[in-house]
Amino acid sequence: MSVALCFTHFLWAQTPQLLKVRKHFEDNQHAIINEFVSFLSIPNIAGDSPNIRKNAEFIMSAMSKRGIQNVQLLFPTTTKAVPAVYGEVITPGATQTIIFYAHYDGQPVIPSQWAKGLSPFTPVLTSESLEKGGSIINFPTTTPYDLQNRIYARSASDDKAGVMAIINAYDALVKSGLKPNVNIKFFFEGEEERGSDFLYEILQNYSSLLKSDLWIICDGPVHQSGLKQVVFGVRGDAHVDITVYGSKRPLHSGHYGNWAPSPPMMLAKLLASMKDENGKVTIKGFYDDVIPLTEAEKKALTLVPPVDVQMKKELGFPEQEMKGMSLAEAINLPSLNINGFQSGGVGKNASNVITISATAVLDLRLVAGNDYQKQQKKVIEHIKAQGYYVIDREPTDEERSRYAKIAKVTLSSGYNAQKTQMDLPIAQKVIAAVQSTTNEQVVLMPTAGGSLPLYVFEKYLNAKTISVPIANHDNNQHAENENIRLLNFRNGIETFAALMMMK
Amino acid sequence: MSVALCFTHFLWAQTPQLLKVRKHFEDNQHAIINEFVSFLSIPNIAGDSPNIRKNAEFIMSAMSKRGIQNVQLLFPTTTKAVPAVYGEVITPGATQTIIFYAHYDGQPVIPSQWAKGLSPFTPVLTSESLEKGGSIINFPTTTPYDLQNRIYARSASDDKAGVMAIINAYDALVKSGLKPNVNIKFFFEGEEERGSDFLYEILQNYSSLLKSDLWIICDGPVHQSGLKQVVFGVRGDAHVDITVYGSKRPLHSGHYGNWAPSPPMMLAKLLASMKDENGKVTIKGFYDDVIPLTEAEKKALTLVPPVDVQMKKELGFPEQEMKGMSLAEAINLPSLNINGFQSGGVGKNASNVITISATAVLDLRLVAGNDYQKQQKKVIEHIKAQGYYVIDREPTDEERSRYAKIAKVTLSSGYNAQKTQMDLPIAQKVIAAVQSTTNEQVVLMPTAGGSLPLYVFEKYLNAKTISVPIANHDNNQHAENENIRLLNFRNGIETFAALMMMK
Repeated sequence: MSVALCFTHFLWAQTPQLLKVRKHFEDNQHAIINEFVSFLSIPNIAGDSPNIRKNAEFIMSAMSKRGIQNVQLLFPTTTKAVPAVYGEVITPGATQTIIFYAHYDGQPVIPSQWAKGLSPFTPVLTSESLEKGGSIINFPTTTPYDLQNRIYARSASDDKAGVMAIINAYDALVKSGLKPNVNIKFFFEGEEERGSDFLYEILQNYSSLLKSDLWIICDGPVHQSGLKQVVFGVRGDAHVDITVYGSKRPLHSGHYGNWAPSPPMMLAKLLASMKDENGKVTIKGFYDDVIPLTEAEKKALTLVPPVDVQMKKELGFPEQEMKGMSLAEAINLPSLNINGFQSGGVGKNASNVITISATAVLDLRLVAGNDYQKQQKKVIEHIKAQGYYVIDREPTDEERSRYAKIAKVTLSSGYNAQKTQMDLPIAQKVIAAVQSTTNEQVVLMPTAGGSLPLYVFEKYLNAKTISVPIANHDNNQHAENENIRLLNFRNGIETFAALMMMK
Repeated sequence: MSVALCFTHFLWAQTPQLLKVRKHFEDNQHAIINEFVSFLSIPNIAGDSPNIRKNAEFIMSAMSKRGIQNVQLLFPTTTKAVPAVYGEVITPGATQTIIFYAHYDGQPVIPSQWAKGLSPFTPVLTSESLEKGGSIINFPTTTPYDLQNRIYARSASDDKAGVMAIINAYDALVKSGLKPNVNIKFFFEGEEERGSDFLYEILQNYSSLLKSDLWIICDGPVHQSGLKQVVFGVRGDAHVDITVYGSKRPLHSGHYGNWAPSPPMMLAKLLASMKDENGKVTIKGFYDDVIPLTEAEKKALTLVPPVDVQMKKELGFPEQEMKGMSLAEAINLPSLNINGFQSGGVGKNASNVITISATAVLDLRLVAGNDYQKQQKKVIEHIKAQGYYVIDREPTDEERSRYAKIAKVTLSSGYNAQKTQMDLPIAQKVIAAVQSTTNEQVVLMPTAGGSLPLYVFEKYLNAKTISVPIANHDNNQHAENENIRLLNFRNGIETFAALMMMK
């Protein structure tokens, strides 16, 4: 079956069903957005257990209010800190069970980096994207929202929008007198942003409860062209933290400059050795192990609307990092990114000092075929090849006296990439359902650039996963000034409603 | 006259004068140190005008209490924010006038980087250096201090110890019934740590008041061997701040990794290009313009006790940055240090993000012959030679669309190095006075590694300067955990008392 099939337009967009779901949003927009704002006001940094629990309780209450059954927390075996929130709706006569997934935890925040008037856990409404000249406005109380408005807050897009769109999709069906055609299960994770270390324990502990034909994963943005997309895989993710050392105490850069080793210079040289001028990673074997794309995947890539020119203009640079490669191609390769580099202070925090250490955090993205531990090991071997003595803790005095170049390297647990084949029958049903909500082309991507630990669903439940993201692509996910455009949020509700009515 | 003359021991250490000065300290140690602690409790970050003024007022009061005459603030022409504190003692029959200089402002602080129990402006006493296992203890109220104790606070050594040692030296003479042999002028600067931008205006405005035969500069540490030292020059100093740019907004490192430019990688490559593996700066012409050492200076360097082995052991590294060069030799060359490098966050602030920019602060030290603006220009030319479009402000959208590599480079005002010839008669008198306070060798250094804007004294007053530092070398000056050892503070009082009695 050709993946091009998906371009048949089902035009659900003109059916009474869509009109009803849309009207439900229009009639209830203030209540829906008020609830979303309350949800965003609860801090949700992954690992902040007390607040993570508050978020989980908020979701449980929102689900129960909507008549969702069997609402409960699902706990891993070894910790009570990161429960998933579960609920279900059993549909009489349904032959298929779909689990809708989103996560309610968020990335760390550095409030000082957020724009003036913004604070990660005090959501505000803006007329438009701040980058495009939008300004902060009041939330309307009676007049309708302009769907170009955006809400700024941590997890506004990643991924509390997903949680709220899914449960409001179900609500819209029920309140509009419509009925789902599948059994629906809800699964909202609470530790995605720190690597889903305990997710597999939850899947093991509740394997009967979590039986399904498919997991629909809501996370990440729609295509940069603005078109809806269905994504059949995710990249894996792993981190390598590197600290290099100089003097044991900070030194005056005048009295010791030229003579004491300079950790930021050492780290700059080490990192510079990891990529060539064309953006290609020079670590030995970095691109080995990659499984080539199938013919169907290659064909799907040729149909992805080209966005490189538009994106470079929007983002403000003329040349991509990997020369000669499109964005859609680039994310089908493993990558190495410097998430952060710090040594000493800059700006008003700068001092005339030779620092004692320099630290960088590397983010490794993986594609099908990569093993995350093997990929981390390649980085370590590269560091050793640059003359470093590599340890996983602070150096001892004895080691300091012996080795001129010492690197502390710590590894995250990480996970591998995952892919579902595009031509499975259930994959085609998903494509058709999403396509039925829009008259525009739905983009089909073999993999997202982003990561989710989807391999665990396959490994522990033998389950299939397909991602249906809803956020605007310019959402500043993982960074300061995260936001969601209201039109994307509303379209997300409609998309999930269509998926719940999938036959 | 040979510089070796200084090794004649005058043995003032055994004279009644020294014993009286020392006894004055012993009898008044609690009051002296209490006053010092109160002084350290006033925040003094250079540029923090209200607090800088409070420090100046504190010093004026301490001087007046000791009978120092004509105490006043000396203001530059264009700002009231950074006054110097002045005072004088006219000695009947004296034929020479010596100005004693120290500065009362301090480097910026990052309180979170200070050790547990320490806070930059809440001085604490420790039994010994924290690095050597010392712990925080109570300030004694009646029992004598152990002179190995240290006070931890910003400017404990750099340079409030200088201010307090100088005025207590005068106090000790007077209270012990001794008399200075020279006219004494006191000059305490309030903006040294941000580059002494307005010092020349003060010197111009008060040129008659500031007539002298010599300025004695108290700043920086004694020799690493622990020996007292007299220093005949300082390195110049200038800064170059560099910011490189990627996307206009932060991007998810999964969705855009491999494709969006990486500012920390760009900056790492740029900085890595500035030094070779032997620590030599590779910027074109970087070592040009340096005036070679005189024979007397070369000879003095041969007499400097070798400290490299001891210092490497103490500081915890086996190899210096510039291969094959001793510390004493290395500071006689211009240097380039990365004071700070920042892009994104590390540790708990790390996010999976491609950052929008990366910033580094470079500290350039200069020796006699270097012009600071010329040295900065060499760095800019190097950045351009790496393919960068260099500007001194944020890039416009038009520039972003045109140039793949953009660097914002901002330059500090900076200043040149300065040197006084060792064989001048007044230089020999200073050497003799310092030598008279100790039975150990006094180290003579052609230049310090550190910087002070001493060229302005020569340029605007045609004055000579010689540095007589007092702080312990392991004082963490300019960094977290700054401290002064009480023995150094007391020895400093004795040194300045001897200089005030110089004939």
